[in-house]
Amino acid sequence: EFPYGKVFAKIDELKPQFIDTLGKAVKIPAVSGDESLRPMVVRKAHFLVGELQRIGFTDIQLKHLGTQPPPVEDENLQLPPVVLSRYGNDPKKKTIVVYGHYDVQPASFEDGWDTEPFELYVDEEKQLMRARGSTDDTGPVIGWFNVVQAYKESGFELPVNLITCFEGMEESGSIGLDGLIVEEADKYFKGTDAVCISDNYWLGTTKPVLTYGLRGCNYYQTTIEGPGADLHSGIFGGIIAEPMVDLVQVLGSLVDSKGKILIDGVDDMVAPLTEKEAKLYDGIDFTLDDLNAASGSDTSLYKNPKDILMHRWRYPSLSLHGVEGAFSSQGAKTVVPAKVHGKFSIRTVPDMDSEKLNKLVIAHCDKVFSKLESPNTCKTELIHDGDYWISDPNNTSFTAASKATELVYGVSPDLTREGGSIPITLTFEQQLKTSVLLLPMGRGDDGAHSVNEKLDISNYVNGMKTMAAYLHYYAVAEGK
Amino acid sequence: EFPYGKVFAKIDELKPQFIDTLGKAVKIPAVSGDESLRPMVVRKAHFLVGELQRIGFTDIQLKHLGTQPPPVEDENLQLPPVVLSRYGNDPKKKTIVVYGHYDVQPASFEDGWDTEPFELYVDEEKQLMRARGSTDDTGPVIGWFNVVQAYKESGFELPVNLITCFEGMEESGSIGLDGLIVEEADKYFKGTDAVCISDNYWLGTTKPVLTYGLRGCNYYQTTIEGPGADLHSGIFGGIIAEPMVDLVQVLGSLVDSKGKILIDGVDDMVAPLTEKEAKLYDGIDFTLDDLNAASGSDTSLYKNPKDILMHRWRYPSLSLHGVEGAFSSQGAKTVVPAKVHGKFSIRTVPDMDSEKLNKLVIAHCDKVFSKLESPNTCKTELIHDGDYWISDPNNTSFTAASKATELVYGVSPDLTREGGSIPITLTFEQQLKTSVLLLPMGRGDDGAHSVNEKLDISNYVNGMKTMAAYLHYYAVAEGK
Ligand SMILES: [Zn+2]
Ligand SMILES: [Zn+2]
Ligand SMILES: [Zn+2]
Ligand SMILES: [Zn+2]
Repeated sequence: EFPYGKVFAKIDELKPQFIDTLGKAVKIPAVSGDESLRPMVVRKAHFLVGELQRIGFTDIQLKHLGTQPPPVEDENLQLPPVVLSRYGNDPKKKTIVVYGHYDVQPASFEDGWDTEPFELYVDEEKQLMRARGSTDDTGPVIGWFNVVQAYKESGFELPVNLITCFEGMEESGSIGLDGLIVEEADKYFKGTDAVCISDNYWLGTTKPVLTYGLRGCNYYQTTIEGPGADLHSGIFGGIIAEPMVDLVQVLGSLVDSKGKILIDGVDDMVAPLTEKEAKLYDGIDFTLDDLNAASGSDTSLYKNPKDILMHRWRYPSLSLHGVEGAFSSQGAKTVVPAKVHGKFSIRTVPDMDSEKLNKLVIAHCDKVFSKLESPNTCKTELIHDGDYWISDPNNTSFTAASKATELVYGVSPDLTREGGSIPITLTFEQQLKTSVLLLPMGRGDDGAHSVNEKLDISNYVNGMKTMAAYLHYYAVAEGK
Repeated sequence: EFPYGKVFAKIDELKPQFIDTLGKAVKIPAVSGDESLRPMVVRKAHFLVGELQRIGFTDIQLKHLGTQPPPVEDENLQLPPVVLSRYGNDPKKKTIVVYGHYDVQPASFEDGWDTEPFELYVDEEKQLMRARGSTDDTGPVIGWFNVVQAYKESGFELPVNLITCFEGMEESGSIGLDGLIVEEADKYFKGTDAVCISDNYWLGTTKPVLTYGLRGCNYYQTTIEGPGADLHSGIFGGIIAEPMVDLVQVLGSLVDSKGKILIDGVDDMVAPLTEKEAKLYDGIDFTLDDLNAASGSDTSLYKNPKDILMHRWRYPSLSLHGVEGAFSSQGAKTVVPAKVHGKFSIRTVPDMDSEKLNKLVIAHCDKVFSKLESPNTCKTELIHDGDYWISDPNNTSFTAASKATELVYGVSPDLTREGGSIPITLTFEQQLKTSVLLLPMGRGDDGAHSVNEKLDISNYVNGMKTMAAYLHYYAVAEGK
């Protein structure tokens, strides 16, 4: 059924070269969050351009996004460029945009790495590659290059037109990328049939997954203000209405210790669980032990893996992040803070309406505060929001990826969602009016953002094979 | 009745010289909280020694207190010395210890001062002296020197033996002073009949006061701990018991928005208000407007001045200071803090027992937390405590100070307490087994610790006269 067996053989044959290319790429410390390393991020973009040219991509463009907005030390700091390129431009073929990012999280040997973080260490015994960026997200980015090279060197045409969209600012909020996608939707990205993002992970360490949903996030702050300045608790304690006392009452009314959101109307907006959806959770490779290992504790609110996953993926949650304006250091300061901001956020899921949620949250806080009959003032506001994303895991793109996974791994992938957000997913879907597929390459224990980030060689190789087979199955499928 | 009219005349005569001496003293930036200025604190101690020698004090000793304990930048940083000295040593006379401090709060012109803070500016129009330390506490310290000089230059013997105890670390926690008082109680301070502290203020701006009580302070922290490290709310929100959620419930159970302490048994320990004590509040010069001006707001929990003062002085209060370990900056961070410390304190009053209070507080927090059925852990502990202090405002020392005030100001002083603590008061009382009198020189609006700290010239002059008359009335009174 898969006519490109030679492509797989080529991937196996070129494995040493592919590892070598990844080694060259991760050597460049492209830390987008460190202004002083911005030239390195730019250098890595140019490294990618060289690779794209070598392989035969065309129409290669470095899209400059302008000056980075404050807060920055260097007011003229330029954002790293987005690398756009194409391979093939055949109107009879489908067109796929692949997204990835070439910037990385900070890392230094002193953080506790076993080897230099910007030097690819190949552990022959464990058959893994350790380096910052190995799994997040340089490995998958180089993976796409390798797939195209393998097709080419096997003597096959690529079954689709491929467009790359690689950014250098993902670890620092993807500043400027939204605008570029809007700008290029009908230009560079014109005619796109599907988007594939390879920038997340398997749930565990053994079973491949495809990801079809992400929660959104509405972040709020409640500000309670009273005295004109911070006061001394000796002089004012007991005779002044303290903003912190009011704030604790408001924050305490939002969620209980069992995780239940106490704001009226929020649960009513959550899409009911259908039998069909519930079935998607059957047999997903995940245990309570996995959660406990990840949290470093035994503090789960649920014992059943299905309950845990549903509450991470398909139910909303409310977290209390902290308080700004109050005493927050070590020791004992006898201050009565004059103005305090409570920070909390709600992870959103289908079918929650963001604007309606804001109204419910603000009305709730106002009501709780007014019952306190406090002479202070209280204001709750949205700081930022990002919508949830949900895809049909049975659409053409997911079906193609599922077939590809079965071919490579011999198992049907788990269909997963994630509790966090990847805002660009929704932008692609909305702006290019296509489906988006999240096709991870690495495992759940790869340690993206941690010390000793790694990518197993088998995930690198099988990930490329899965990408290669996905392009074929998507190309030959009916519809998009 | 007061045989020393010439002393008052001498004080008036020497006013320009006394202002000049204060000017020399405040010129030295003796900021105890700034390590780099420690040599200036020491220099100011030596300046005092020079003045003591000039006036004729004897047995002048600079008591070194050793190395300042961490946290310090310089591990060998020496504590500033305590300046001990005597004037007179007649076994037939009573002996009074006067306490003050020569160190000051930080100050710089850039903070918004109208004139250089370490340069005494004499405002002839407003008849006030502006400088850091003018009222807190260099003015009163130099005042004692001047009183002795005025007695001497008028040709009178001082009616008491005077011992000075001036420290240079008060604004930084009086480190080492307790130990010195314990050490010298039966040595340098042997035979002390009374202690007089001039380091507080009138309640308002027109009526002199004597202060006979201070609240204590028990400072607590409740630590709630769960996950092994801070977590991401996208991945863990809704499936993990969040320490912040539990903490807010515990903090919210301590006190309500009306200032009522909700811990069982605390109110039962408070001494009942007697008719006699209630009378002490009659006619005290204080209004709701005074409180609103001080807090910069209209957030008082009481409207009646008597209620306000009683809740500041003779009832306990519970303040929530803040949270350590949670997100506390500007902006929006989606962290689930793993370990949070809630900070709160209780101002204590007669007849609260500190140890019993600790037990009640800890039992209350444990009980509230256990009701949450959280898998996290909760621990409440005392960080530090300092007992309340209360004196008999009708004892010999207060009666003498009251007569002195009437003589100088023509009014009977208001008898006040304070909501805050001056821990050294209790140490003097307990270690020297004497009564302690708080005899303020400055006004409630002097701005100790603020910009444009000032001392009215009339308060300086009348304060010295009050001190001088106090020494006489105390000397001639029956008993101690
Ligand atoms: Zn990534
Ligand atoms: Zn990342
Ligand atoms: Zn002071
Ligand atoms: Zn002070």
